[in-house]
Amino acid sequence: MPQTNLVRNLLDSVFARARRLRPGASPSDPTPSLPTGAAGADTAMALARALLAERSQFSSLKIARQMLTAYRALDDEGKTAFLTELAQNFSPDPQAVRRALDAHDQAPSAYALSLVSKAAEAPRQELLRQLNQAPMATAELVTMRADLLRILPQKPDLRALDEDFVHLLRSWFNRGFLVMRRIDWSSPADLLERIIRYEAVHSIAEWGELRDRLQPADRRCYGFFHPAMGDEPLIFVEVALSEEIPSSIQSVLAPARTPLDTAKARVAVFYSISNCQDGLAGISFGQFLIKQVAEDLLAEFPQLHTFVTLSPMPGFQRWLQKAAASGDNDARAALAHGTPGNDWTDDDPRTRARMTLAARYFLTERDERGRLIDPVARFHVGNGARVERLCWMGDTSPRGMAQSGGLMVNYLYDLERAEANHTAYARHSNVAASLALQALAPVSPPR
Amino acid sequence: MPQTNLVRNLLDSVFARARRLRPGASPSDPTPSLPTGAAGADTAMALARALLAERSQFSSLKIARQMLTAYRALDDEGKTAFLTELAQNFSPDPQAVRRALDAHDQAPSAYALSLVSKAAEAPRQELLRQLNQAPMATAELVTMRADLLRILPQKPDLRALDEDFVHLLRSWFNRGFLVMRRIDWSSPADLLERIIRYEAVHSIAEWGELRDRLQPADRRCYGFFHPAMGDEPLIFVEVALSEEIPSSIQSVLAPARTPLDTAKARVAVFYSISNCQDGLAGISFGQFLIKQVAEDLLAEFPQLHTFVTLSPMPGFQRWLQKAAASGDNDARAALAHGTPGNDWTDDDPRTRARMTLAARYFLTERDERGRLIDPVARFHVGNGARVERLCWMGDTSPRGMAQSGGLMVNYLYDLERAEANHTAYARHSNVAASLALQALAPVSPPR
Amino acid sequence: MPQTNLVRNLLDSVFARARRLRPGASPSDPTPSLPTGAAGADTAMALARALLAERSQFSSLKIARQMLTAYRALDDEGKTAFLTELAQNFSPDPQAVRRALDAHDQAPSAYALSLVSKAAEAPRQELLRQLNQAPMATAELVTMRADLLRILPQKPDLRALDEDFVHLLRSWFNRGFLVMRRIDWSSPADLLERIIRYEAVHSIAEWGELRDRLQPADRRCYGFFHPAMGDEPLIFVEVALSEEIPSSIQSVLAPARTPLDTAKARVAVFYSISNCQDGLAGISFGQFLIKQVAEDLLAEFPQLHTFVTLSPMPGFQRWLQKAAASGDNDARAALAHGTPGNDWTDDDPRTRARMTLAARYFLTERDERGRLIDPVARFHVGNGARVERLCWMGDTSPRGMAQSGGLMVNYLYDLERAEANHTAYARHSNVAASLALQALAPVSPPR
Amino acid sequence: MPQTNLVRNLLDSVFARARRLRPGASPSDPTPSLPTGAAGADTAMALARALLAERSQFSSLKIARQMLTAYRALDDEGKTAFLTELAQNFSPDPQAVRRALDAHDQAPSAYALSLVSKAAEAPRQELLRQLNQAPMATAELVTMRADLLRILPQKPDLRALDEDFVHLLRSWFNRGFLVMRRIDWSSPADLLERIIRYEAVHSIAEWGELRDRLQPADRRCYGFFHPAMGDEPLIFVEVALSEEIPSSIQSVLAPARTPLDTAKARVAVFYSISNCQDGLAGISFGQFLIKQVAEDLLAEFPQLHTFVTLSPMPGFQRWLQKAAASGDNDARAALAHGTPGNDWTDDDPRTRARMTLAARYFLTERDERGRLIDPVARFHVGNGARVERLCWMGDTSPRGMAQSGGLMVNYLYDLERAEANHTAYARHSNVAASLALQALAPVSPPR
Repeated sequence: MPQTNLVRNLLDSVFARARRLRPGASPSDPTPSLPTGAAGADTAMALARALLAERSQFSSLKIARQMLTAYRALDDEGKTAFLTELAQNFSPDPQAVRRALDAHDQAPSAYALSLVSKAAEAPRQELLRQLNQAPMATAELVTMRADLLRILPQKPDLRALDEDFVHLLRSWFNRGFLVMRRIDWSSPADLLERIIRYEAVHSIAEWGELRDRLQPADRRCYGFFHPAMGDEPLIFVEVALSEEIPSSIQSVLAPARTPLDTAKARVAVFYSISNCQDGLAGISFGQFLIKQVAEDLLAEFPQLHTFVTLSPMPGFQRWLQKAAASGDNDARAALAHGTPGNDWTDDDPRTRARMTLAARYFLTERDERGRLIDPVARFHVGNGARVERLCWMGDTSPRGMAQSGGLMVNYLYDLERAEANHTAYARHSNVAASLALQALAPVSPPR
Repeated sequence: MPQTNLVRNLLDSVFARARRLRPGASPSDPTPSLPTGAAGADTAMALARALLAERSQFSSLKIARQMLTAYRALDDEGKTAFLTELAQNFSPDPQAVRRALDAHDQAPSAYALSLVSKAAEAPRQELLRQLNQAPMATAELVTMRADLLRILPQKPDLRALDEDFVHLLRSWFNRGFLVMRRIDWSSPADLLERIIRYEAVHSIAEWGELRDRLQPADRRCYGFFHPAMGDEPLIFVEVALSEEIPSSIQSVLAPARTPLDTAKARVAVFYSISNCQDGLAGISFGQFLIKQVAEDLLAEFPQLHTFVTLSPMPGFQRWLQKAAASGDNDARAALAHGTPGNDWTDDDPRTRARMTLAARYFLTERDERGRLIDPVARFHVGNGARVERLCWMGDTSPRGMAQSGGLMVNYLYDLERAEANHTAYARHSNVAASLALQALAPVSPPR
Repeated sequence: MPQTNLVRNLLDSVFARARRLRPGASPSDPTPSLPTGAAGADTAMALARALLAERSQFSSLKIARQMLTAYRALDDEGKTAFLTELAQNFSPDPQAVRRALDAHDQAPSAYALSLVSKAAEAPRQELLRQLNQAPMATAELVTMRADLLRILPQKPDLRALDEDFVHLLRSWFNRGFLVMRRIDWSSPADLLERIIRYEAVHSIAEWGELRDRLQPADRRCYGFFHPAMGDEPLIFVEVALSEEIPSSIQSVLAPARTPLDTAKARVAVFYSISNCQDGLAGISFGQFLIKQVAEDLLAEFPQLHTFVTLSPMPGFQRWLQKAAASGDNDARAALAHGTPGNDWTDDDPRTRARMTLAARYFLTERDERGRLIDPVARFHVGNGARVERLCWMGDTSPRGMAQSGGLMVNYLYDLERAEANHTAYARHSNVAASLALQALAPVSPPR
Repeated sequence: MPQTNLVRNLLDSVFARARRLRPGASPSDPTPSLPTGAAGADTAMALARALLAERSQFSSLKIARQMLTAYRALDDEGKTAFLTELAQNFSPDPQAVRRALDAHDQAPSAYALSLVSKAAEAPRQELLRQLNQAPMATAELVTMRADLLRILPQKPDLRALDEDFVHLLRSWFNRGFLVMRRIDWSSPADLLERIIRYEAVHSIAEWGELRDRLQPADRRCYGFFHPAMGDEPLIFVEVALSEEIPSSIQSVLAPARTPLDTAKARVAVFYSISNCQDGLAGISFGQFLIKQVAEDLLAEFPQLHTFVTLSPMPGFQRWLQKAAASGDNDARAALAHGTPGNDWTDDDPRTRARMTLAARYFLTERDERGRLIDPVARFHVGNGARVERLCWMGDTSPRGMAQSGGLMVNYLYDLERAEANHTAYARHSNVAASLALQALAPVSPPR
């Protein structure tokens, strides 16, 4: 009866601890020295089994906390062992599923089918739900999935476990549970510290730079948060209000610029979108966030008429090199011109050549699965945005030069056309683009 | 291409509506005249199918909102039709499950099993998750399940659908997502109005009575809330602090009583626990709430040494009559004494006879499934509480007299013994009880 | 050295008490049995003198708390004695003022004059400021002034003390320190309970009536609060949004009325304004509140074009009787018609006669100080409002019938004319009125 | 009729502006080009006179806002002219005071004296109260006083005006109106930015240093705030929890130190106290803050037994040089030893010589007004603290070396003795000190 041993003196200690608890105390017990490695994985696994066997809410809460604590103490070896056992031994029983199916065949009914569903659910899902009862457990489960994704390339067997994580996290991080909050210069410092850390597109070197993105009246930042994760952002977007569509990140982030009088704002520019949680990879929040931010901005600034991004092209240079390597003459020629620079004017033939290749990159090139090559483009075009304009020397930072030779791109969220654009891409891989871009790279007849 | 028709001009209207939106405006569109009955069910069902087919987050949010609006407009005939179709036609495909099982047999792996799980999940679960994305949808889904439970007795086929509701609601209303809040006389009036409405044990006639339960220093009330449901309580418990274990609800709720100086409090009495949401029946929060409240009270009043309930015995009189009807002589004799009254003293033989029967009711009588007959007893004893004391004339209200001839009972949450008590009941149906109770109804050798 | 005795073991007890303090505990020591009557007044007075002599902030805070506690324990005899001594013996020293004046005469300077000011300030002002340091003292000082105003008619000598109270309270309850908050159905219940208690114009019988004034979308309530007084309102106003200017309180407060779609609202009706604190009599907040509420409503409902009151005429019937008694024939005739009723139609001569008198009451009659006779009229006309319309049978409640024979009046806050109206009344006692009212009571040439 | 011109179209513009107002908009009008210098001072002064003459609350609020805006636009010449006129021409009328005094002589009464008080109050006090009605005016008035204090040394005539500022600010910033808030790493970033800016004792170079003072469990920071000034701190104190009394700021602020387990904390060290508002100089909050912080810490950590400071000695080196210059041989000898260094051990005679002089500095030396020479010592000893220990090389920063040759000092807040200590210093200039300090500098018989 292992769970009896494990959960002995449950209420005793629960109430005893409550006596010690003072407001502000950490909810977790101190863990002076917990085992790591294989021994640690065994401890954690014993607790996992006890948790699944437990029927008392009092006890299960405590065991859940203990198991998460034991897991957290593990090194990578221990984590790998633990996760692997979860993936291998907490699967549904195929015989039980077959028996339920047979029963349904003999007396078909919706209810009989629901018993098939029940038999087919992996017990590890129930385990993860039980773990989630403990205080602050949600964040720890997200971290556990981040561990899993880190280990997965070496241990493809863990894929079965990841399926269950995705299934649950998608349910728990449902849009209906997320809260959008504005992030500004009066936000809590610990939250802002995380914004600095998570900014993935145009990094923030110090607090002064962050203030320049949050405090001016023509700048906004919004994020999605989950109530069970406190001030931990899931995703955030940085917005600039402007009179015209900007064509370079340098102008947007210029250190000494004068803020725009917001009465003159006509354009909202989404110039940086960052996902914050590795453990939520594949759970997508971006479209919802853009939509909600656009609605809120319109309510506050009814004069806005354009919603646009200023986006990097992280895959462009890599594609160019690949194309050149596989014999594409235009790509070869472009690379032979060397690194683009501010001295390449708009009508410089080298500029034109690169711009034409960039137009091809969006309009006609596709990856082996028929998708846009550029991951950022996949996101925005998949949302129904239009490729509006290529921005020459839009990002002259080392990263910008390395990724795309300094090119950036504006995606336009055109209110009238988004649904049609979305469908055209989803069904036919057709990418909506401005006439200027189309002129650069005419789409050939259906391939 | 039905979804194209349904979601036409998506962004158009989304952004257009955003322009009209002002802070505080209702998130739902006005619904001038929506169909009800079978036609309405067809509309709602078309939207449900469109929602499952939709891949754009922008669009699915809007369709979800429309479907919930369409559902809400339905009358009971329409709801029954809609829910029945959900139960019948959104089940998993048994052939697909069988194919996945066969594939696993040929090449067994955890991942192959995870494909079985996936094939076996009912598509209506995904539908419910999609619906939950819309603003305030969670509360509407809880209401939908309340509809389902109301209709279920007439339409047992809906049971398959209820399985999916329970599965999702259990996941969404996981303890980790609930927030405990103290409810007091400075709580929002609309929340307190709900407390008056939901109080299920000792009803509250007007605001003055509510204030008497919330405002005195020796009274507390706590509830669980879900972040997506705002000020809508899920469950709440009312607590009295006292020097001794009270033996009647009249003394606890006496209108003109003097509040206890909390420095003298030694006993926390849980005298009323009410579940608020019909749609969450079967999703149990009570143990978690009692545990959390006990911890918080101990942190605030370290001198508390006893946690006890003052509970009704809602099934006692009914059992007595049933026992008498099936030939139990003691029960017959007790009933022949007529309605108990305040003039039956403690040593009145009639009193003794009833008390003995009450002790039997807890200690030796069980229902056909081997459980305690009394539903409140099942809850507390299942939590590990001990049956501590019978309270003669504990509740002399009409309801108290009708349910139990005025008897109430104290369940004691004994810190040292709860785990053992829980296990003894869970495994052997043995009920922990004070010596006094045991003396009244000696437990015969194992049955 | 009395203060040494009084403040002995200051830090000792301060820190000792801090050890006992738990969150939520009352900041004041329990006061088992404090003296009342003359002996109590002596104790309080000794503490007052000690407080003025004290130089340590640590000590003065404690003495202030003790003095307020001692005062609160006094009966009316004790309070009268204490307040009288404050009025008599804490005045400035006239010799010191004269000396400072003489010094200024010999060497005139702004600084020498400031020493005159200093010498002339009553020491009781400093005492009141010192008292105000204690936690929650502001509310207790407001109560002390309410005591003073209650006792003043019997003890006119207290007038000197009241001057100092007014001086300080006006400074402390400066508009810049007040916070306007919306009061609605999600406001704290204890605040709403106070609204029920303080409603002075159209009383609220129970919580359901209050909800009808707060919850519908076309109803608003706003109040001023002072940060040091928590949820205790200073003044509040109830507002109805409507399509037209309403002419009876019965229509505004009709129990089963259908709320107006706020998109149709064109008129904001201030139908009840209540001052809450007796101790703040003479400190006026009403104009500021009306102005702020009007601004907030306009920001939320830009389509509003009319701001109007629906006001009682509390002095009308009394004036009518007085006028009749002093020989006014029209007044006599009007009274001879008996009590007005719903059966008096608009063109009933009795109706016309009364309306004409009401117009006179506003437009030509003045009190002995040249002011409008009606106190509510003085407030609104003094703010620059116009007397817009008499409302026949506007308030048929017993109070409405007794005060004004059922008449009510709309005061219009006309955006273009308020300043001129205000000036015309302030300088010449001229009251702005609609043409209809002017026609009823032509203003004779300057009196 | 100047005020009519100034306040023309009051409500017109008030309501018109309200229409434009959106939530979050700045309350002040934009001020495209306002006069500065003497012309600007004239404008501001005309508005000041209009404000005093105005009787309508609607109008006075607007004029107050205009006058503050006009003042803010002034350069120093304009401010000096404006403030000087306030000081000269808004004094009480000495003839009126004399008349009131004479009236009192003829018929003495408390009320007659109160008329003397009224006549003697400077009209500029009423002006400042009227100004304070405007939104956010309190902070602007505090800034106006900071201007005044900056200009005062050149314009001693402004002293009369400063008396009125002090009088009002003391009343408005009464302890009863202040709110103590904990400042931590989840505080708003704009508040924390101010903490960095205002830290006066041990400066904070960047956000990482600030985090080290706020985030660890053994560190605390608390400030006083005024409700009308938002997130603008008035004063704040930084606290370290430790096991022993620390003897150097280097150890307290060591960059890589391990935070103390707070269960082991026995000592609370106030290691930095900073006043934030130049305009509130002379309005003292420090004692109240220390008292409140000590109470809160004790409530949270009942095991604390010692409250102590680690304080600079900003006047020591200056005094030493002055003493040497005026022939003090010990001081000369000490200075001849050169700059102290870490290589001067405890028993180095040079160390002893300096420590002896430091003991004299506290125990026997006094300034020309009989007060302690050190301003920090005056504050703590005046509060009743004891000079506990000299800390050799307690602050080796350039500032610490320059001010005191690296010496710091612990002041002990001894619970039992504070009142007596306070009195001994207030009456006899006697300074409480530990035996060790007394041994270093024996106090000679009463001087």
